[in-house]
Amino acid sequence: MASESNSRNGVQVDNTLQSICYNRGSLKLLDQRKLPLETIYLVIQDATDGWNAIRDMVVRGAPAIAIAAALSLAVEVSNLKDFSGTSDYAASFISIKLEYLVSSRPTAVNLADAATKLREVVLKAAAASTESEAVFQAYIEAAELMLKDDVASNKAIGSYGASFIQQHLENSKRFSVLTHCNTGSLATAGYGTALGVIRALHAKGVLERAYCTETRPFNQGSRLTAFELVHENIPATLIADSAAAALMKDGRVSAVIVGADRVASNGDTANKIGTYSLALCANYHKIPFYVAAPLTSIDLSLSSGEEIIIEERSPKELLNSRGGLGEQIAASGICVWNPAFDVTPANLIAGIITEKGVITRTAADAFDIQDFIEKTATLSLA
Amino acid sequence: MASESNSRNGVQVDNTLQSICYNRGSLKLLDQRKLPLETIYLVIQDATDGWNAIRDMVVRGAPAIAIAAALSLAVEVSNLKDFSGTSDYAASFISIKLEYLVSSRPTAVNLADAATKLREVVLKAAAASTESEAVFQAYIEAAELMLKDDVASNKAIGSYGASFIQQHLENSKRFSVLTHCNTGSLATAGYGTALGVIRALHAKGVLERAYCTETRPFNQGSRLTAFELVHENIPATLIADSAAAALMKDGRVSAVIVGADRVASNGDTANKIGTYSLALCANYHKIPFYVAAPLTSIDLSLSSGEEIIIEERSPKELLNSRGGLGEQIAASGICVWNPAFDVTPANLIAGIITEKGVITRTAADAFDIQDFIEKTATLSLA
Repeated sequence: MASESNSRNGVQVDNTLQSICYNRGSLKLLDQRKLPLETIYLVIQDATDGWNAIRDMVVRGAPAIAIAAALSLAVEVSNLKDFSGTSDYAASFISIKLEYLVSSRPTAVNLADAATKLREVVLKAAAASTESEAVFQAYIEAAELMLKDDVASNKAIGSYGASFIQQHLENSKRFSVLTHCNTGSLATAGYGTALGVIRALHAKGVLERAYCTETRPFNQGSRLTAFELVHENIPATLIADSAAAALMKDGRVSAVIVGADRVASNGDTANKIGTYSLALCANYHKIPFYVAAPLTSIDLSLSSGEEIIIEERSPKELLNSRGGLGEQIAASGICVWNPAFDVTPANLIAGIITEKGVITRTAADAFDIQDFIEKTATLSLA
Repeated sequence: MASESNSRNGVQVDNTLQSICYNRGSLKLLDQRKLPLETIYLVIQDATDGWNAIRDMVVRGAPAIAIAAALSLAVEVSNLKDFSGTSDYAASFISIKLEYLVSSRPTAVNLADAATKLREVVLKAAAASTESEAVFQAYIEAAELMLKDDVASNKAIGSYGASFIQQHLENSKRFSVLTHCNTGSLATAGYGTALGVIRALHAKGVLERAYCTETRPFNQGSRLTAFELVHENIPATLIADSAAAALMKDGRVSAVIVGADRVASNGDTANKIGTYSLALCANYHKIPFYVAAPLTSIDLSLSSGEEIIIEERSPKELLNSRGGLGEQIAASGICVWNPAFDVTPANLIAGIITEKGVITRTAADAFDIQDFIEKTATLSLA
């Protein structure tokens, strides 16, 4: 991977922060490890560069990882000079590279899902033609479509979410919202989910201020969300996670909007640790609590959040500064409990904002997600 | 101030961690800035050393500051070689030094209160005798009594609290509790308030495990409470502040015990930011939430917590690592809201544990603190 600083050699970045800069044959990834102090893009030339970037946390966020992996191989394929072989051989070449890319983060579901879909595309192309070029072309187009679809999906989430929230807070001309972790351009192909809704509220001129939590222990809020909000000139304030309750009591926020790692079929939502605490505080203060996530985050195979297994992360994230990367803070010998996620029960959630609309409670005061998915199946993105 | 490391020159520290090591004529303060990485005691020889130690955060915690200041002057007075002058002159000498000590942390109420009480003692002694020695002796004894009283008060809080909680959790032979910030030997003359209760539960053999929060943004939990718990061999686990709700949902804790900066006459309690959030989470999970504080923390002049003014601290505590002391973490240009305290309303508090017993709700489901103080006025500490 070659490294390019934004200012030095004029990599074009439009005003919306992009973690993934792609044109056919060329891919650059924003090195998120260096944020917020440095804005450096790494040039990705092939699947090996992509694998390293994912494993080394250059790029993070489930949708962003999957797309970065797919595009790293698209770039490699675009620039292949002398490939001699049949379409079957080309499909096999791509399948092996996809398998290799999945090994960069074996537990990332989106990455494995994306690899499966892309493998199907190339197998189909190989069955339809004997030319390797047809397979490569099909792969490149499918990978590019993933990028395009993710941005379109996020923009639809932003648009539906902003309209819905504005409608439900009709008494307030302008209002402030609180978010947690990073769900923005840096975690997705662009625009973001919960942060996409905030972006859309700002674009409508109804956002007074966005509050973001630090998001301990890995500080995605202070490092990344704060960076995105400043970059977008959205009025924004950083708070300690534990100050959220006092913020609500002071009447400073009218809604909470978070992302989701996984949503069960009853609406229970697994998201970054601390989300459940925010939901409880919002509930007490009668502040609506929204989840913003693409339909791909919904796992209908899970009947409730109790079936979601919570990953525990390294004690080092709490024992050392900078989420484990810095010097020792905590006493030697102390045990640590560091769950990566928690589960917010559906009864604390006012609505689930998706790219096909907002899922709200039925008359029976529950989410019928299956029904929503069926009813919106034929709806295309705006 | 001379510096002494614990291991190097054999300063005696018994098994209970002491922030203040005092014998007549000699005072050493544990340098809390160095914890948990180094255990270094600073030798305090006079009021100037005491002033510097307080201003430079060698010692922190409201009771500890007041006692450290009083004892620094007691040491100076004990070692005075050639004081020629009347008792009035001695009283004036002490009063001026006390005024100087108060200027080390002008907003610390306990420190100002202690100085006022000590000034009264020396003025009374000067009125009763013409000998300067009588004034000095009275001062030294009064300062030493403050040290003794604070430890006795904390031990009484621990004892009352542990018995009360054990009684209310009678179905559990052993149980775990959660605490916030640092309320232990390091914040007091010894033993601690909320941490004193935890210490007493451990001594009774009923404590399964103590959970402590990091206590963002200044990390008093990970730096100090974790250190004390490890030092005392109390089974203990550190969590991110935002993981408390998930901890409660998992059924891992049976009670929450916190300290108090100020308690209003209706029981509303100001304490370290994040306390209110813990109280809300405990309330939802039907886990009792206790405040442990000496009666001196109760301010009957305040009718409710709404009258408590919340200090806002430096944005740097969130923008940089190690509570503002380390390198930059957050994006440049982000605004910060960093309140030092929040107020937990009395309706979320199950009991206020004091050195005279536990204040519980009346039949009218409110705290009658005035009545409790009057009824226990003649009760001496165990």
